Amino acid sequence: MKLHEYAGAPNALRVNIFLEELGLTIEHVQVDIRAGENLTAKFKAKAPNGLIPYLELDDGTCISESVAICRYLESVSGIRDDSLFGSTPLEVARIEMWHRLVEFQVLVPALQAFRNISGIYTDRENINQEWGLESKQRYLDILPTLEQQLTTHFYIAGNKFSIADITLFCVVNFMRVLKIELTDDLPNLQQWFAKMSQRPSVIRAQSTD
Amino acid sequence: MKLHEYAGAPNALRVNIFLEELGLTIEHVQVDIRAGENLTAKFKAKAPNGLIPYLELDDGTCISESVAICRYLESVSGIRDDSLFGSTPLEVARIEMWHRLVEFQVLVPALQAFRNISGIYTDRENINQEWGLESKQRYLDILPTLEQQLTTHFYIAGNKFSIADITLFCVVNFMRVLKIELTDDLPNLQQWFAKMSQRPSVIRAQSTD
Repeated sequence: MKLHEYAGAPNALRVNIFLEELGLTIEHVQVDIRAGENLTAKFKAKAPNGLIPYLELDDGTCISESVAICRYLESVSGIRDDSLFGSTPLEVARIEMWHRLVEFQVLVPALQAFRNISGIYTDRENINQEWGLESKQRYLDILPTLEQQLTTHFYIAGNKFSIADITLFCVVNFMRVLKIELTDDLPNLQQWFAKMSQRPSVIRAQSTD
Repeated sequence: MKLHEYAGAPNALRVNIFLEELGLTIEHVQVDIRAGENLTAKFKAKAPNGLIPYLELDDGTCISESVAICRYLESVSGIRDDSLFGSTPLEVARIEMWHRLVEFQVLVPALQAFRNISGIYTDRENINQEWGLESKQRYLDILPTLEQQLTTHFYIAGNKFSIADITLFCVVNFMRVLKIELTDDLPNLQQWFAKMSQRPSVIRAQSTD
């Protein structure tokens, strides 16, 4: 099994934290997305979404999309009794619900802010600076909803650590690199972020990333 | 159990098709999103994402996000042996992978095109016409990837009907309402769409919607 990734990208970190939570070590292969390696027909034959990371199994089967990779690795490793996607129907639903809020209302605006403000990919996509600023504002505007959730819960989807925490950590961490910090009016989110930063899986994933 | 929805919205149709696939009938409650009912504190206490649909259980527990609702309903109904989210680890991963491609690269641009071109919510959000047109183009640009997948598979995630088909159908159907049709250079997608339109669950969900 090989994980094709671009170290430093938030989705690479997401899968690597998940791998550390499982205690799994697998081979990593770097893909030069800056040079557009992911835009080639050869790459898209493996990962039709045109994105890293993707997991290549020993028989050549490829799985793209970080969350699909995490689900697969958790299932086949059989290491955890308590799934990071939830175990009972209600827990699964709660984690999915909060994870989707994080993905569609935090991750999507964050990435659109990054790509449209930084203009990092002007060689391959039309950028819209104004939409970048709007997306940054939407990212900031959703944070109080998570702050509110953390006033009564230890973690994003309840009192149990889950995939929703991993994803949110990677987004907030990525935005900090862009100098967009958690402000002091979000004390619970700040505490949660500090706690996440000290989690062994996160420390290990970041040190090898 | 009550499903709070806005009939006519693509996510309402998505959950209703899923309900028909399960053969489940539950009470529906309409939420007036045009009037901004979903923007109130009362609504957000039930659905923190501020979106319909959400499912309210008999004990008052609420689950928002369409896919979380579908996962929950499928689990508790126990009706299907073959989950619409996949049964084996590899099938689960394949369905998740294609479903996410559909959600992030088809649904997100489609909704951003709709909201920014139609300007339907100028009373509640900043719109960006230029981003709307860019999003429409991105929606059109990803369709050949799905066309390609359908040259060798009956359904979006392989040869088995799944949640990925339901989501894609709802998006393409919604875009047709906006006069954005599947063009003749996408014959497999056109055939798939015609087949989906004739599926009993889709006919029933659309007739009661």
